[in-house]
Amino acid sequence: MEEAWLLVLMGMVGVVMGGYPTVTPSVGQVWPRPQMMKTEDTYMVIRPNTFKFSTVGHDCDILQEALKRYIRIMFKSHWDPETQTNQPWRKDTGFKGYLDGVSVSLLTPCEANPHQNMDEHYEIKIDSPDAPGEGTIISQSIWGMLRGLETFSQLLVPDASAYSINSTQIMDYPRFAFRGLMLDTSRHYLPVSKIQETLDLMAMNKLNVFHWHIVDDQSFPYVSAAFPNLSKLGAFSSRHVYTADDLHTVVEYARLRGIRVLPEFDTPGHTKSWGPGQPGLLTPCYKESVPDGTFGPIDPTNHNTYDFLKTFFTEITSHFSDHYVHLGGDEVSFSCWESNPNITKFMDKHNITGSYNKLEEIYISKLLDIIANLPTKNGYLVWQEVFDNDVEIASDTVVHIWKNENLPIAWKNELDKVTSRGYHTILSSCWYLNYISYGVDWYKYYECDPQDFNGTDGQKQLVLGGEACIWGEYVDRTNLTPRTWPRASVVAEKLWSSSAHTSSTAEASPRLEEHRCRLLSRGYDVEPIWPSFCSADVN
Amino acid sequence: MEEAWLLVLMGMVGVVMGGYPTVTPSVGQVWPRPQMMKTEDTYMVIRPNTFKFSTVGHDCDILQEALKRYIRIMFKSHWDPETQTNQPWRKDTGFKGYLDGVSVSLLTPCEANPHQNMDEHYEIKIDSPDAPGEGTIISQSIWGMLRGLETFSQLLVPDASAYSINSTQIMDYPRFAFRGLMLDTSRHYLPVSKIQETLDLMAMNKLNVFHWHIVDDQSFPYVSAAFPNLSKLGAFSSRHVYTADDLHTVVEYARLRGIRVLPEFDTPGHTKSWGPGQPGLLTPCYKESVPDGTFGPIDPTNHNTYDFLKTFFTEITSHFSDHYVHLGGDEVSFSCWESNPNITKFMDKHNITGSYNKLEEIYISKLLDIIANLPTKNGYLVWQEVFDNDVEIASDTVVHIWKNENLPIAWKNELDKVTSRGYHTILSSCWYLNYISYGVDWYKYYECDPQDFNGTDGQKQLVLGGEACIWGEYVDRTNLTPRTWPRASVVAEKLWSSSAHTSSTAEASPRLEEHRCRLLSRGYDVEPIWPSFCSADVN
Repeated sequence: MEEAWLLVLMGMVGVVMGGYPTVTPSVGQVWPRPQMMKTEDTYMVIRPNTFKFSTVGHDCDILQEALKRYIRIMFKSHWDPETQTNQPWRKDTGFKGYLDGVSVSLLTPCEANPHQNMDEHYEIKIDSPDAPGEGTIISQSIWGMLRGLETFSQLLVPDASAYSINSTQIMDYPRFAFRGLMLDTSRHYLPVSKIQETLDLMAMNKLNVFHWHIVDDQSFPYVSAAFPNLSKLGAFSSRHVYTADDLHTVVEYARLRGIRVLPEFDTPGHTKSWGPGQPGLLTPCYKESVPDGTFGPIDPTNHNTYDFLKTFFTEITSHFSDHYVHLGGDEVSFSCWESNPNITKFMDKHNITGSYNKLEEIYISKLLDIIANLPTKNGYLVWQEVFDNDVEIASDTVVHIWKNENLPIAWKNELDKVTSRGYHTILSSCWYLNYISYGVDWYKYYECDPQDFNGTDGQKQLVLGGEACIWGEYVDRTNLTPRTWPRASVVAEKLWSSSAHTSSTAEASPRLEEHRCRLLSRGYDVEPIWPSFCSADVN
Repeated sequence: MEEAWLLVLMGMVGVVMGGYPTVTPSVGQVWPRPQMMKTEDTYMVIRPNTFKFSTVGHDCDILQEALKRYIRIMFKSHWDPETQTNQPWRKDTGFKGYLDGVSVSLLTPCEANPHQNMDEHYEIKIDSPDAPGEGTIISQSIWGMLRGLETFSQLLVPDASAYSINSTQIMDYPRFAFRGLMLDTSRHYLPVSKIQETLDLMAMNKLNVFHWHIVDDQSFPYVSAAFPNLSKLGAFSSRHVYTADDLHTVVEYARLRGIRVLPEFDTPGHTKSWGPGQPGLLTPCYKESVPDGTFGPIDPTNHNTYDFLKTFFTEITSHFSDHYVHLGGDEVSFSCWESNPNITKFMDKHNITGSYNKLEEIYISKLLDIIANLPTKNGYLVWQEVFDNDVEIASDTVVHIWKNENLPIAWKNELDKVTSRGYHTILSSCWYLNYISYGVDWYKYYECDPQDFNGTDGQKQLVLGGEACIWGEYVDRTNLTPRTWPRASVVAEKLWSSSAHTSSTAEASPRLEEHRCRLLSRGYDVEPIWPSFCSADVN
């Protein structure tokens, strides 16, 4: 490529570039990388003031909102009509004309809500041999169309006055159906606007499940209509809460971006903040035969516990439209149960004396039974301990593997065990992004593969995907976005793109660098991964 | 204290608080902790719409700007005139009346620029026994007055309608004269607005030296009038630069806050980006007897080098008013010098064959000589290697100790060696804040003390202070503020407050927690240090 053209592609016309960044970003490449993409050296030019999407085929609110949104995203920066002169490069032999419109061809009616089995395939043709000079995005499904629009927006290369797009053909679909990100709103409160920002960035990385770890020991920000005291006494303050309106706002914002919202209400452990608002729910801990004023996990021996759970989860499933809820079940500490004489009596009576795993199993079994018999007939995810403890779980349960970050042999073994028993699973062990460290840490996220374990093809089919987790002990609105991105982008590509295309960090580096600059230019505080610069640094 | 009053103090009237944060913040405490502070339970009330500062004594632009600024800072949030009703707590016995004004008593004329020996003492009296019902801030020096204004602003405790301030007497001054923060604008460009934000936060933590590591291997953003090609060919782009106007903006912004700007132009290593704009400056590296096209440190054998340095540093010292410049001198790699036959010839001629330390010494000696003989007669700081290599340095040189973060015995030994030779020194080894890790990391910053080494009292007097460093490999405008703060606040307290008052992280915790919430409410993205909440989370 000649130098002037390269400068145009870098969006830096008239700007001489120097210095020694670690990597030179790619130009007009897509993140995550599509399954099949063929690009010619020829290109068309898009002018923001004349460009239009036109729908041919089915239509719906999700599509209309998306088209408006992508016009905004594509033309957010770099557009200065005054500089729209003097474009010698448009006379070169690669120029194939102006692309003033793209047809958006949705082949089946929209579904209302994203779901575990949603179809996300799409195709893009820009100046293709069968339709020279034209542009089309085609999908069988609204969800695929959303992914295609994101890809299309990434093909545009800005210069001082317009955008160029290479002649391109893409056929694309995800490797995994479950591509998640977890936020924790108990250790720190996150304003709804920050959750929305995260959903924007998820859509720009084709992640499709927002796992909302909404409550935990430290605070209970969920406002329950049936049990208002839970947040009244368990939230940090009456302003550090999520109302029904807030939940609706988040779920709708996610839906319009093809993102499922998977709420987690973790029990029977991690429930300290549930205690003040629901007396009798937690196990009183004893010291020398008297209650010491502290509380442990939910009391599985109290009959009222299950009435409470039934009412509570009926309410939860009315707010969240996804088929699945996440029921937690991790890290239950037994010391409080051990101290409590009523618990001991109950266990003696049920012939499980001393076997606290069995007591936990009794609780979890009853909870799973409640969920499966709700009017909404929900499915559920559980953290791996529930499986490890041999609790009987429904056949459509998804087991969430999270342990042993630094011991791949252990989580690979767990993947084998879970899938050999026929359960679906998702992996997070290698993607705990809250564990920060100094230096280039994204290689290890890119080198982790949820199907890299000893197992049959049938077992590997049971791996639904994976999830990046941002636990909230050290994260709030001040650092959520830079700490999460672009590290979660790395996970997103592993979960979307083919394994053949995601085996080399060296190949990924220039595209990741371009993607970071892209997200920065769209207005998000996405942090650097090594010495580098972006045109949007200067703002 | 009664509960209602506590809620008033927490700035959360009408808000019931719950949940389980790690630490409960203090109320109306000062960070960094003053040397002497006595507070009564009685209090006065400040109403934003009637409150005024009045100057009695000397005045100047720095003071006028500061008074305007602090009115803005103090009353930034929590002030909603509509809620100014129904204040039963004003009838309690502790209420000593409204404080509608504070006299600002500056006892000597303002100095133009902050400097190494500036006086930062101040006193505050609010409803003191010798002046009941009144408020005064007194200082001999404009620099002490700036520190006093910050302290005063921190004494205000907001509620829904006004601010309360306890009857208080403070006498305060810094433990160390040099309390620095270093930013690196070579690995990533930082917009001037972000540098200004850092200066704001430095002032709010009583840090007084901004060490600007402005250029390095990766880029050369400084625009030189004498050598424009340095940034033209060495900056990331023509927009990733600092012009003379930018420098002036930064220096003036800092001056108004009592902060020195200490520019660093690190040589002879860390200079890769200098090369393209100044042919002949860097040493050509050889491979098998021919230049291989790469370059090493500045070429100390080239006579033109020293002419260039003289002109260059004359220009630098015209932009920066501080007596000191930082000359770097760290991490010089010898491999390129070793490969170059001209260097070898020069060394043979000077009878230093094979002794590359001696070659470095020749360069540094000539550079120090140039600086000391500039019309501005500047002093300098150097990284510890210059001292370690036994280069002859001027007696007012400040040796900057930075090595051996994880080996306290080594940097303590270095403190001993440097001060036993009679040199002034500052410590950064334990305060490389760019080295992030998971979990609570501020304890180790708080437990580091620059005078904690084996040495005489006279040696310890030579320790001017210390400096937190944020090297820029993984830091740009997206994450600078949350990554730096409140971790740099921890260093700030160690450097300002008495060692007797900074020995316990447990004592510091509630005050640090309050300080973080305070900075957040002032509009800065200061990250959390553990599970917690602040009233400003919700914005």
